[in-house]
Amino acid sequence: MTDSTTMTVAGFQTAGVACGLKANGALDFTLIASDRPCTTAGVFTTNLVKAAPVLYDAEVLARGQSGIRAVAVNTRCANACTGEQGLANAREMARLTAETLGVPPDSVLVMSTGVIGTQLAMDKIAQGVTLASGELDSGDAAWNRAANGIMTTDTRPKIASETVVREDGSAYRITGIAKGAGMIAPNMATMLSVIVTDAALSAEQVDRLLHQAVEVSFNRIVVDGDTSTNDTVLLLANGASSVVIAGDADEAAFLQALTAVSVKLAQAVVRDGEGATKFIAIEVSGAQDDLAAKQIANTIATSPLVKTAFYGGDANWGRIMAAAGRAGVALDAEAATLRFARGADDEGLLLYAHAMPTHYDEAVATEIVKADSVIVRLNVGMGGGAATVWTCDLSHDYVSINGHYRS
Amino acid sequence: MTDSTTMTVAGFQTAGVACGLKANGALDFTLIASDRPCTTAGVFTTNLVKAAPVLYDAEVLARGQSGIRAVAVNTRCANACTGEQGLANAREMARLTAETLGVPPDSVLVMSTGVIGTQLAMDKIAQGVTLASGELDSGDAAWNRAANGIMTTDTRPKIASETVVREDGSAYRITGIAKGAGMIAPNMATMLSVIVTDAALSAEQVDRLLHQAVEVSFNRIVVDGDTSTNDTVLLLANGASSVVIAGDADEAAFLQALTAVSVKLAQAVVRDGEGATKFIAIEVSGAQDDLAAKQIANTIATSPLVKTAFYGGDANWGRIMAAAGRAGVALDAEAATLRFARGADDEGLLLYAHAMPTHYDEAVATEIVKADSVIVRLNVGMGGGAATVWTCDLSHDYVSINGHYRS
Repeated sequence: MTDSTTMTVAGFQTAGVACGLKANGALDFTLIASDRPCTTAGVFTTNLVKAAPVLYDAEVLARGQSGIRAVAVNTRCANACTGEQGLANAREMARLTAETLGVPPDSVLVMSTGVIGTQLAMDKIAQGVTLASGELDSGDAAWNRAANGIMTTDTRPKIASETVVREDGSAYRITGIAKGAGMIAPNMATMLSVIVTDAALSAEQVDRLLHQAVEVSFNRIVVDGDTSTNDTVLLLANGASSVVIAGDADEAAFLQALTAVSVKLAQAVVRDGEGATKFIAIEVSGAQDDLAAKQIANTIATSPLVKTAFYGGDANWGRIMAAAGRAGVALDAEAATLRFARGADDEGLLLYAHAMPTHYDEAVATEIVKADSVIVRLNVGMGGGAATVWTCDLSHDYVSINGHYRS
Repeated sequence: MTDSTTMTVAGFQTAGVACGLKANGALDFTLIASDRPCTTAGVFTTNLVKAAPVLYDAEVLARGQSGIRAVAVNTRCANACTGEQGLANAREMARLTAETLGVPPDSVLVMSTGVIGTQLAMDKIAQGVTLASGELDSGDAAWNRAANGIMTTDTRPKIASETVVREDGSAYRITGIAKGAGMIAPNMATMLSVIVTDAALSAEQVDRLLHQAVEVSFNRIVVDGDTSTNDTVLLLANGASSVVIAGDADEAAFLQALTAVSVKLAQAVVRDGEGATKFIAIEVSGAQDDLAAKQIANTIATSPLVKTAFYGGDANWGRIMAAAGRAGVALDAEAATLRFARGADDEGLLLYAHAMPTHYDEAVATEIVKADSVIVRLNVGMGGGAATVWTCDLSHDYVSINGHYRS
């Protein structure tokens, strides 16, 4: 498995265009199309208020996962809380795309992101479909435009690609794009991602492997704890490389590459979190089980007090212990230890042990916390459960961005 | 029951002094003393990382609730995550106070608020005990100084008082002070409150009635969703009015007055939330039960996206539906309705019904949201459960205050 030097995936073409949804003329509509049917899996928001495109895609995939030909994505309007009209619009966006591409009516999935509670401007969507169909291309420039076309408050496009070369010399590629920025919580809030591969997989395989990859990537990131109505991660496999994923070794290699793409995209979402100035990895160990560790890590990652302290460059580790203590799962305050580390290879600075502060050097703690990237390493002293969650700090800019999002 | 014109409670004296904990010379130490033993109840943080004063007070009250004579409170240092030394310091703070007041060693409770993970400056605490003992007074000025002496990032003292006059002309009073500002979550985060009364109640009564009052007041406020290590609400009853609370009618009247004091203090905490510019009541009805309603209301009140939208004066109600949808309890998106209202008497502006926006006037919605005080009224269309939670918005100042709290 190697980082790809090109994003091209055999049989797939993409486009990102401006169809007038964004007032400033920026790219706002993305199309991803395959020259043959794809086996497809989707992971959708757990929010009970589900956007129309989520309801539509889930319905299409429930009828059959093997015939998908394209994904159309618009920004600026989430098509959520839009009732029957919203569902009809999602269906029409899919139908228009299928008609323009000349593929079967039920072979197109749709995604929307943006403001909740407004209806899609269908004339602009139609314009987007027409423009994007005319610009489809398999090259890196088209992939970059596709990644740009799904951005909302994102400041950078998010794209990742891995190539797997097998022992017999055959190879396949996995390329994904994502958008995030705000409303990011455990369970994927306002995360849209499309990942495609030219390997061939069964419906059972895409489902199982996508869920496994999402669990350790998109489900491990927190920006603000809000879970959106629109979260969707799709995996499309068209088999154009002629590589068939069969057997444990093949599956393991595919999962490793898919996870690498997913983790890169997920971490990119956090690094570009709304107003983020800092990337923070929360590594919790010593919990009763992995689920308990994840819950503690999520509680720390969601705490506004922890996040503002990191923004301020203040090594206020007491807030981390306070957050851990209210996570709703067991911890042993006597046995717990807390460290701040600079990176994976750094053992870290021990701040807290035996239920009290160590005699650490405050200047060193501050220096670690002021860096762009920090690891928080908390052992809660109960057992063998472990989990890592990635998050960012909470800044003045987060408040500015979200105080006037609709304007 | 009437709003008191004076705060004085028979047999109680208070003081607020400056003992050097705050660098700027502001009041930082408060003492509340009774001339006779008080029956006392405490409600403490649910955080598993409990501060030393919380552990100490719980231990004292577990040994006996009937002999309490005083409460000493310091700011600037939470005495949390401080291990054996912290516990010894809490004990010493109580012992010093008891010695100075000439009361039994185990009759003093202590509270601390401020930075986590530093040890108490015991020389300053000793100074505070000496100064405060010399200034004890029963008048309103002393109560105001006591309310000021427990403030941290609070911008205003919080004090409330109710007088109950019974049919036979006998009367008693309930006066309470509180501090809050940040780390306020369901279950009382960084809330300290001492409430005293000159009515006589049994240990069973103070316990039961305090828990009932806290449940509909301090447990219904959210500033940032963080729950502190130090939350404590104490109720001290010294019986100096000679009114004995006995029988259902007496208890009901007492509970009503105690609840009124608690709600006033709790709402004052939210109104003075760190950086708050707006008071928001989240009224949820139509839930499966009251607990489900409370969970939905808390999720909305904790959502950074909802809170920043209110700060920006943006009627972005879709974020409220999105927060409700991820609360983890049932709702019926088809049957749900959402309104913004100006006050209790206002039916409110219907924004959302039948799973889509109504044809409301955006200018009216914006006008409601831009006011200092807003009611969000959400019916989730499932059943008869209802709950109200009070919260504030999330502003640039919250980030400024918490980015550099320790400096």
